[in-house]
Amino acid sequence: MNHTEPVSKVFYIAVYDITQPKRLAKALKTFRKYMNWVQNSAFEGELTARQFQDLKDELLKIINKEKDSVIFYHAEEQKHIGKKIIGIEKNEITQFY
Amino acid sequence: MNHTEPVSKVFYIAVYDITQPKRLAKALKTFRKYMNWVQNSAFEGELTARQFQDLKDELLKIINKEKDSVIFYHAEEQKHIGKKIIGIEKNEITQFY
Repeated sequence: MNHTEPVSKVFYIAVYDITQPKRLAKALKTFRKYMNWVQNSAFEGELTARQFQDLKDELLKIINKEKDSVIFYHAEEQKHIGKKIIGIEKNEITQFY
Repeated sequence: MNHTEPVSKVFYIAVYDITQPKRLAKALKTFRKYMNWVQNSAFEGELTARQFQDLKDELLKIINKEKDSVIFYHAEEQKHIGKKIIGIEKNEITQFY
């Protein structure tokens, strides 16, 4: 039996600033395939290197590189990032320590 | 000469979802006192425990806790968080590794 090495995942927080509605709708659709919607203009989730590359490639076909901005913060392990919320939690997804 | 212990700082990323314009304007004004504007609905910066508490207290007087959401992601050290940008960088502030 071939024990393949578990594919390592990195934790990402994506924050986007996309002003044009059509581009925004397409970008949201793409993000949802890979990450969890957290609140307006923020997604989070664990991705393999392959998944991250695919997501970036798809977004680069959608956004206007002179007007739109997408920032990916990433940490090798989710345990390196804590999370505190004030106000409502718009989408309860990940368990944070 | 009294060598006071250097106050430790934690790196924060703040993402906010505040729909009502007046509350949003007040929240932005407050955020700017403590953190760096990164792009629409995102700030980042290093804060002491005291600064973080003050920022939270001020925001809690501004936001509507049933409608608005502010998420603080935090990492003990900035080196635990990397940053990748696609599209334009709306505000060049921090040096990331």
